[in-house]
Amino acid sequence: MSSIKTTVPYKMYLEENEMPDKWYNVRADMPVKPAPLVNPATGEAMTAEQLEGVFCKELVDQELDNASRYVEIPEPIRDYYKMYRPSPLVRAYKLEEALGTPAHIYYKFEGNNTSGSHKLNSALAQAYYAKKQGLVGVTTETGAGQWGTALSMACAFVGLDCKVFMVKCSYEQKPFRREVMRTYGASVTPSPSMTTNVGRALNARFPNSTGSLGTAISEAVEVAVTTPGYRYVLGSVLNQVLLHQSIIGMETFVACQKYGIEPDMIIGCAGGGSNLGGLIAPFMGQKLRGEKDYRIIAVEPASCPSFTKGVYAYDFCDTGNICPLAKMYTLGSSFIPSANHAGGLRFHGMSPILSQLYHDGFMEARAVEQTAVFEAATQFARTEGILPAPESSHAIRAAIDEALECKKQNIHKNILFGLTGTGYFDLVAYQQYNDGTMIDRIPTDEEIKAGIATLPVINK
Amino acid sequence: MSSIKTTVPYKMYLEENEMPDKWYNVRADMPVKPAPLVNPATGEAMTAEQLEGVFCKELVDQELDNASRYVEIPEPIRDYYKMYRPSPLVRAYKLEEALGTPAHIYYKFEGNNTSGSHKLNSALAQAYYAKKQGLVGVTTETGAGQWGTALSMACAFVGLDCKVFMVKCSYEQKPFRREVMRTYGASVTPSPSMTTNVGRALNARFPNSTGSLGTAISEAVEVAVTTPGYRYVLGSVLNQVLLHQSIIGMETFVACQKYGIEPDMIIGCAGGGSNLGGLIAPFMGQKLRGEKDYRIIAVEPASCPSFTKGVYAYDFCDTGNICPLAKMYTLGSSFIPSANHAGGLRFHGMSPILSQLYHDGFMEARAVEQTAVFEAATQFARTEGILPAPESSHAIRAAIDEALECKKQNIHKNILFGLTGTGYFDLVAYQQYNDGTMIDRIPTDEEIKAGIATLPVINK
Repeated sequence: MSSIKTTVPYKMYLEENEMPDKWYNVRADMPVKPAPLVNPATGEAMTAEQLEGVFCKELVDQELDNASRYVEIPEPIRDYYKMYRPSPLVRAYKLEEALGTPAHIYYKFEGNNTSGSHKLNSALAQAYYAKKQGLVGVTTETGAGQWGTALSMACAFVGLDCKVFMVKCSYEQKPFRREVMRTYGASVTPSPSMTTNVGRALNARFPNSTGSLGTAISEAVEVAVTTPGYRYVLGSVLNQVLLHQSIIGMETFVACQKYGIEPDMIIGCAGGGSNLGGLIAPFMGQKLRGEKDYRIIAVEPASCPSFTKGVYAYDFCDTGNICPLAKMYTLGSSFIPSANHAGGLRFHGMSPILSQLYHDGFMEARAVEQTAVFEAATQFARTEGILPAPESSHAIRAAIDEALECKKQNIHKNILFGLTGTGYFDLVAYQQYNDGTMIDRIPTDEEIKAGIATLPVINK
Repeated sequence: MSSIKTTVPYKMYLEENEMPDKWYNVRADMPVKPAPLVNPATGEAMTAEQLEGVFCKELVDQELDNASRYVEIPEPIRDYYKMYRPSPLVRAYKLEEALGTPAHIYYKFEGNNTSGSHKLNSALAQAYYAKKQGLVGVTTETGAGQWGTALSMACAFVGLDCKVFMVKCSYEQKPFRREVMRTYGASVTPSPSMTTNVGRALNARFPNSTGSLGTAISEAVEVAVTTPGYRYVLGSVLNQVLLHQSIIGMETFVACQKYGIEPDMIIGCAGGGSNLGGLIAPFMGQKLRGEKDYRIIAVEPASCPSFTKGVYAYDFCDTGNICPLAKMYTLGSSFIPSANHAGGLRFHGMSPILSQLYHDGFMEARAVEQTAVFEAATQFARTEGILPAPESSHAIRAAIDEALECKKQNIHKNILFGLTGTGYFDLVAYQQYNDGTMIDRIPTDEEIKAGIATLPVINK
C-alpha cells in the first residue's frame, strides 16, 4: 500500500474545449487504398447509387472517400459525444506495479457509457445521418450485444425506430443485453427469425440453428431494403465506421501531446477492426507519412483468427450472401467460431482498411487463446479495478505480455492499448473461468480450409 | 437535433490536483449530535474498546469523532480514489430539453466504476484501515450486491480476504453480481447459511427463508467476532461510512465553486443514507452554520419508508439482534420490504446522522412508488444515456418532479441530485417494467405497526 510516484495523472481527461472536432480518415495517407466493395452479380465496384439502397447517403459518401484526411464532425454529433466523452486515457500504475515492469502502460478506456464499449461513437454518427435524411428507422444485427445496445441508445437520442436482429444464442444467453435495448425503445428479434426470407430458409434447412453474425446481417439488410424509410447500419468492418471510431485515436493523440507521452507500440483487439482502426488512425497516418514509427499490434482470438490464419481475398460479409463483397482477410463467410468462444470478435472477416495495412506490412497481428485472455482480464480487474470485456481483454493479454518482455529485457517502453469496454454482461464466461471449466477451442486446419473453400468465384 | 447553448460543460471533471484531500465530518456542525450506539445488554453507550471487537480501530475513532470538521484522507486511499475519481458533475442538458423546464438539472454521477456505485468510496477506506491494522480479512453482508462488489474490489486492491454474506434471494436472482465478487477473489455465501449460529437457527425456524439484510448482517458480524484476524465492515448507516462518502460532496462543492453553480436544492435517494449523507455533507455544514440555505430532500421507496412512516427510536441494526443499538428512524428490525420491491434501499433503519438532521428539521423526506421510479429511470436513460440503478432512480424521480414544478410555475431553480450508480445488474426489474408486470406494494398500517412493535425495551 505504499504510494506510487506519479509523473502523469492516473486518469487523463481532455477539457471539453480540447475535444477533437474532426474525424481522421487514414485512407488519405495509405499508399495503396483499400479495395472497393464489389457487386457480386457483376464483379464491378459498387457505385454510390447502389450503396444508397442499403446505407444512408452521407454515410455512402464517407464510405467512398479515400482522399479527405480530416472530416468535420457535425455539431449535433459533437454534442452527443460530450455526453460521454472525452474518454479517459489512463496510466496503469497499479498494473505496472503488480507486474514489476519498467514499461509504462497506458490505456484508452471506452467503457464508461451504457453500451459498455466504443460502439456508441459510430452508432451516434449513423443515427444522426439517418435522421437527417428523414428516415423512419434503421436495422442492424448484434452478436455479443454491444453494438445493438449502442445503436438503441443512439436511436433513442435522435428519435428513430431501431430493429435489431440478435444472434439467437446470444439472445437466449444474454437476456439482459436484450432488456437494455428494449429499455431504449428498440425491438429485438432472435436470428435466424421467421420474419425474413433469409431467416425462414435457414430455419427450414437447419431447424436448430443458434444463429451467426453473418445470418443476422443478412436478415437486417433484407428488412432494410424491403421496408420504406429504413436503411441498414453496421457496427464494424466498414470504412465509415473506422472513420467515426477515429475519435478514439484523435482524443488519444491530443492527450499524448498534452501529457508528453510517446507510445512505442499501440495494441488493440480486432474482430471487425473498428476499435483498432479508430485508435490507431492518426498515429498510423504519421507512420504512413514516414513521420514516426510505431509498432501496431492487432490481437485476435485463436478461435477466430482472420488475420493470422485467413486469406486476403474478396468475400461476402454475410452468410446469406446478399451483401456486397469486401476484400479482406477472411476465414470464409461460412466460418463460425466454436460455441466455446466467449464474447465478440467472432466475425469471419476484417476491416478492408486494416486488411490492406496488414497486407502492406504496416502492422502486426497475433492470436491468443481465451483462458490466457481471462487470466489477463482477472489480473487487470484486481489491480486496475475495471472488469474488462472479453474482447478488450485480448488487448490486455498482449499488453501484459509486452510489459513482461520489457521486464525480462530490462528495457523501458511506452505501451498503449485500447480498452474497448466492460464485461458486465459477460459474467457467464467469467463464471466458466472462475470455475475452471473454460476451454480453448482452435479451429483445425480442415475447418479453416472448409471456410476458405466457400470464397466467391470472383477470386478465381 | 438542434444544438444546445451551453453555459458549463456537459461533464465537469476536477483535475487530479483539485481533488479534495479531506473528508467532511458534518457532525462537527450539528447542534444536536447523533445519538451514540448503545449496548443492548446494559443500555450504556458503546465504548471504543467494545466497538473494537467488531470494527477496526481507526474506524472506531472515526465513528466516535463528533468534533473534527475535516479528516485527512490518507495518501494511499487518495491514490485509490484517483483510479476512478473524480466522478463527473454532469449538467443534464438533454433531460432539461426533453422536460421543457426552465430549471437547470445537475447530477453527480458515481457509477463509473466496476462496483457500479458510490459504495467503493467507503470500501477502499475500510479495507485500507483493516490492512493497516494487520488484519487477515473482513466480513460483510450485501443485498443488491453493490456493497459486496465494492468491498471485493477494495480487498483485491489491498490484499485482504473478503467473506460476503449475500441475501439468499439476491444470490439466486443475481448470479452475475456474485460472479463479479468471485472474480475479485471474494467468497460469497448465501444468507441465511448453515455456517453460523444465527443462520442455522433461522434456517431451522424458517426453512424456506430467502434472507434479509438484517440476517446477513448478523451472520457477517458473528463470523467477524469469532474468527481471529477478522473484523466486520458495513457499507452504510454508520457515521464512519457517511464520513468516507463525503468525498462525493467535497468534490461536488469544489466543482460548484469552479463552475459558478449555486444549487437551490440537493436531492438524494436514501436507504441507509450513505450516498445522501456524503453528497450533502459540506452543503449541510454551511446550512447548519447559517451561511447558506439549501432544500435537502431524501427520497425513499414507498415500500420501505423509514423516514416517512418510521419512528425515531433506538433499534437493532440486524435481525439477529447481536449488533449495538442505533437511534434512527426505523420500521423495526423485523420489517422486511415486499419481495416485489426491486433493488436496494431495503434497510429498515436510517443513518443516525441523517435521522437527527431530519428530526431537527434540516431536511425533507418523501416516499415514491417504484413504477413511477422506473418511469423516471427510462426517461433518464433515453435522454441522458446512462441506465440508472433503481436506487438512484428514486432521486431522478424527485428531480424530474421538481423540474416539472419549476415548469408549471415558470421559475428557474438549480436542482442537484446524486446519481449513485448504474442498473446493469438490475435488468430483471427493468424487464418487469418493460413488460408492464411491475407492481407497487406499500406496507399496510398493520405491517408498519408490527415492525415497530419489535423495537427494543430501551425505548420504553
